[in-house]
Amino acid sequence: MKMSLYDVAQLAHVELYTPKLQESVEFFTKILGLQITEATNDSVYLRAYEDFYHHSLKLTAGPEAGLGHVAWRASSKEALERRVKELEASGQGKGWIDGDLGHGRAYQFTTPDGHLHEILWEVEYYQAPEDQKTLLKSRPQKRPTQGIPARRLDHVNLMVSEVTPNKEFMANQLGFKLRERITINEEEIGAWMSVSPLVHEIALMKDQTGQKGRFHHIAFWYGYPQHLMDVADLLVENGIKIEAGPGKHGVSQAYFMYIFEPGGNRVELFGDSGYLIFDPDWKTITWTEKDLQEAIIWYGSPLPEEYFLYGTPDRKVGALVK
Amino acid sequence: MKMSLYDVAQLAHVELYTPKLQESVEFFTKILGLQITEATNDSVYLRAYEDFYHHSLKLTAGPEAGLGHVAWRASSKEALERRVKELEASGQGKGWIDGDLGHGRAYQFTTPDGHLHEILWEVEYYQAPEDQKTLLKSRPQKRPTQGIPARRLDHVNLMVSEVTPNKEFMANQLGFKLRERITINEEEIGAWMSVSPLVHEIALMKDQTGQKGRFHHIAFWYGYPQHLMDVADLLVENGIKIEAGPGKHGVSQAYFMYIFEPGGNRVELFGDSGYLIFDPDWKTITWTEKDLQEAIIWYGSPLPEEYFLYGTPDRKVGALVK
Amino acid sequence: MKMSLYDVAQLAHVELYTPKLQESVEFFTKILGLQITEATNDSVYLRAYEDFYHHSLKLTAGPEAGLGHVAWRASSKEALERRVKELEASGQGKGWIDGDLGHGRAYQFTTPDGHLHEILWEVEYYQAPEDQKTLLKSRPQKRPTQGIPARRLDHVNLMVSEVTPNKEFMANQLGFKLRERITINEEEIGAWMSVSPLVHEIALMKDQTGQKGRFHHIAFWYGYPQHLMDVADLLVENGIKIEAGPGKHGVSQAYFMYIFEPGGNRVELFGDSGYLIFDPDWKTITWTEKDLQEAIIWYGSPLPEEYFLYGTPDRKVGALVK
Amino acid sequence: MKMSLYDVAQLAHVELYTPKLQESVEFFTKILGLQITEATNDSVYLRAYEDFYHHSLKLTAGPEAGLGHVAWRASSKEALERRVKELEASGQGKGWIDGDLGHGRAYQFTTPDGHLHEILWEVEYYQAPEDQKTLLKSRPQKRPTQGIPARRLDHVNLMVSEVTPNKEFMANQLGFKLRERITINEEEIGAWMSVSPLVHEIALMKDQTGQKGRFHHIAFWYGYPQHLMDVADLLVENGIKIEAGPGKHGVSQAYFMYIFEPGGNRVELFGDSGYLIFDPDWKTITWTEKDLQEAIIWYGSPLPEEYFLYGTPDRKVGALVK
Repeated sequence: MKMSLYDVAQLAHVELYTPKLQESVEFFTKILGLQITEATNDSVYLRAYEDFYHHSLKLTAGPEAGLGHVAWRASSKEALERRVKELEASGQGKGWIDGDLGHGRAYQFTTPDGHLHEILWEVEYYQAPEDQKTLLKSRPQKRPTQGIPARRLDHVNLMVSEVTPNKEFMANQLGFKLRERITINEEEIGAWMSVSPLVHEIALMKDQTGQKGRFHHIAFWYGYPQHLMDVADLLVENGIKIEAGPGKHGVSQAYFMYIFEPGGNRVELFGDSGYLIFDPDWKTITWTEKDLQEAIIWYGSPLPEEYFLYGTPDRKVGALVK
Repeated sequence: MKMSLYDVAQLAHVELYTPKLQESVEFFTKILGLQITEATNDSVYLRAYEDFYHHSLKLTAGPEAGLGHVAWRASSKEALERRVKELEASGQGKGWIDGDLGHGRAYQFTTPDGHLHEILWEVEYYQAPEDQKTLLKSRPQKRPTQGIPARRLDHVNLMVSEVTPNKEFMANQLGFKLRERITINEEEIGAWMSVSPLVHEIALMKDQTGQKGRFHHIAFWYGYPQHLMDVADLLVENGIKIEAGPGKHGVSQAYFMYIFEPGGNRVELFGDSGYLIFDPDWKTITWTEKDLQEAIIWYGSPLPEEYFLYGTPDRKVGALVK
Repeated sequence: MKMSLYDVAQLAHVELYTPKLQESVEFFTKILGLQITEATNDSVYLRAYEDFYHHSLKLTAGPEAGLGHVAWRASSKEALERRVKELEASGQGKGWIDGDLGHGRAYQFTTPDGHLHEILWEVEYYQAPEDQKTLLKSRPQKRPTQGIPARRLDHVNLMVSEVTPNKEFMANQLGFKLRERITINEEEIGAWMSVSPLVHEIALMKDQTGQKGRFHHIAFWYGYPQHLMDVADLLVENGIKIEAGPGKHGVSQAYFMYIFEPGGNRVELFGDSGYLIFDPDWKTITWTEKDLQEAIIWYGSPLPEEYFLYGTPDRKVGALVK
Repeated sequence: MKMSLYDVAQLAHVELYTPKLQESVEFFTKILGLQITEATNDSVYLRAYEDFYHHSLKLTAGPEAGLGHVAWRASSKEALERRVKELEASGQGKGWIDGDLGHGRAYQFTTPDGHLHEILWEVEYYQAPEDQKTLLKSRPQKRPTQGIPARRLDHVNLMVSEVTPNKEFMANQLGFKLRERITINEEEIGAWMSVSPLVHEIALMKDQTGQKGRFHHIAFWYGYPQHLMDVADLLVENGIKIEAGPGKHGVSQAYFMYIFEPGGNRVELFGDSGYLIFDPDWKTITWTEKDLQEAIIWYGSPLPEEYFLYGTPDRKVGALVK
């Protein structure tokens, strides 16, 4: 039995840098209905109302937008130890940190492209204040009355200079299964990977500018198509840019919408449940040149070219590598 | 050409009394997303975000819940004059008032059961403050970010001691068309009437306690079934009583939910568009004993007995007249 | 009182030519769930399941796609006579026809651009066969189990060489009210007109190829956004082209999708209720260059250039008039 | 590492007996859009259009309604062997069968209450005929155009004379995690268990008539609330009994509807995605007397008493054990 297959349990949180911390926080709370758990001088810790832990999004003031880190929760204390041992052996390990607000010690590492990740076991569960306690026991707090509230963190999408080595790292070191991928001229340019029945907790997408280590998007989950229309309406009213959507991807069957938070990071809103993979012997779906159109847009709004070129940090490069 | 058929254009606003003015206002604004236009010592003027005039709901402090008045807008100045002339002749006229915040002079009258109505022509259009102006020109203000915002006032439902004379008054004096009705033992116990393709701007329902002049409910319109589910979720979280729904009536095809505002008045939330009547030669639909079940509930949550007995003011009577 | 304002009650039916009658019928029945009432050698008469009359769509075999005629129902026999008198006086009258399957005699006329219309009073109501009778009395038959069934005919959109004279004809001869319009350089290029609270039963759109008398689209109404997504899914599965959508127009607030039936005619599917106009003193909304973007797409899928150029018949012309 | 936690991967299929095989098949295909893969003299094999294997529902002619068996797919061949070894040791093992249409050999066993289960590894994947092949690679066939098509098998609910021993068997022998439960007077009367992030693939519910081994319901998944309303409409039109719903459970956050197929078995239709459990350290949610109301109905249609008493086979017993 391959232990690695079950050692990572879930995406725990993501840290993003923003050059406009206050505006970013305002956007996530006023429009997407996220809740602030705690704040320090430089960072604000937020969560969607059905996220169970202290935070699922950490926004940190920084000179430019981009990824701070991605945090994964192990399946157990022992699973954490097993993963750390292998990460150390991989040469990509950076070592333990004491923890942060909301979680205990965590082991940091980088993927081949240089994105910073961490894996941890001890988490602090969110405790609602008295007036936010709900009778719905599977919900950690009342449903918010502000904005169109997202329900939970869903996945993260990272741009990489080359998909294959990063994909292999996630598979071999952390047990991620490759659910779907896109290849062009037999080169992998997109990979959707998960440790659960979700099609992905992480997607890796080729950065067509050739840069390393950029961030593409974080996705919050709604589950109801109507709510994407509701958010879209609010966004247009409030002058916030919708990059694309609502529409439906062939890959992952996601009903999607992509927007930019004020700091410049792309955010996906996920408006249905896509499909779930329970088959333990799942054969990776491969989309190629000939069905690229359906892979990207099953129906609805197309993706602009910018979708494939813009990531954060938004560093202009000499020439696009196409 | 029968002038009366076109002289009343629409339901303009409804005034409700509430013994808990502040709590009522809080409910309508926080949960249903209504907007306050103006307030006086005793009254607060509200509207849904797609209501075009100064207000569609006037809440007035009073010792007990119930109807203040129902206001209809005539189709033109001349139409108003024609109607007033006939109302005067009917003996139900009460005379002109100078107007109120948001509208010019209005002619008041009572229906046979004693409900107070008025008809008017001059209205003040709502003007959004700068930060609420929207680019969507058919919307008088931005979509609110608070609560699950209702879109517009839809209809009013009045309890009457006898349906037929009140129905005839609305038809003969004001040109309302009878769209659907329920009869039991050949007695009309419910009538749904309109001056537009809506199935009803007013419903008349037999008060089974035998009282006169009580108020059953006011309805706000959402148009999207998902929003009723969203409101239901918020209501349960916040301890506000849902009397019935969501469910679908056979009558009017309304996807409904009935709730009580803190002052005790019943409020219906209308979650789809029902059906519209464009046929100028519409034959009234009559539901009788044998199809009462489908008339009341096509599918979904049943109506409790209270639905047929409770109205405002909630005056207990010696014995129910069944 | 201006009689004309109330003399036309509703859009009754539309006749379309198709060079692929069988495929067109199959599309409308299998995918959109329309019902066949009757058929002759050359024509098939269809209706959506909540259309009350004999048919709302007549498909007629022809050498090329395009409009047969648009039929309006008058508000009464007298209203019909009044309109015919004025149409005759306008010089656009063509005379009476004896009627067709499903309706009695009708008066035919053309608009300035040459589109053929008719106005009629006597209609045959659809009578469901025994196994299609429903308990829902406001529905003329059971909800179909085939395809994603559209509920009713909503509106027709005609391309015209010049909007203004055609608009004026509809207003002056038939009492249509101008609800919204688009002007570019002060020229009207789009007009949305109605005789009911719907924003439009007819839209007139400038044909940027300069041709006269072409057909842009017919719209069927669903009322539920989810159903557009359901149809979109079926269409993609079955290789039927979606031109644009789902998305939301600013004009009319319609949640739209445009597709092509196999004969080449454009069909709009209307996925919510838009907004309704009850104000008897409605001021026409004018969108201009500076807010054209929001007028056309409030959010969602953009419209391709073809949307503004393609109509039926699809006659290529020497040069586009831009 | 506790192997059992990962050895069962998913609910593979359910066999139901029906005294009206043909009517049952017609119901599942015409209304719920299920697809027939294969049929023998006594059994018909069906699947929802996003079920990947040969079948997810086997309907078998029998003298009375009820459960045939529940089949679980192991996570691997080795996992199957491990489970069989433990099942044999438990004394509940019945032995291997050669397989059935659609799958290879399977190990049969009974739970303490006597329900028949099997566990297997080898499955036959559904292969769509040419005209049913879709471009959507995560979908094994085109979306059907018949009825309101369910997407996949979701879970099974079994009535048991005592919840606790059956729950312990599922946990200890098969690795099911207890996600939610209801206790009354400290007795477990309901248990929701899963091997995946779904709240349950199996629920165990106390049979208040005291009988053993009865079947409560099978659930098919839609994911979209609108579709439950669509099915409800079809069911009412076609005289098929809705027992309860649509409404929302507190337990599992399911947007539910319960109906009876013509053979008498209860079927649940699941209209949203509920919530998913990714926390590897999930603490079982316990609902008790004081929050039973919210557990059962968060909002919407209540459950009738029959819901707690009726199961299949529908054997009347001398007295209810309350």
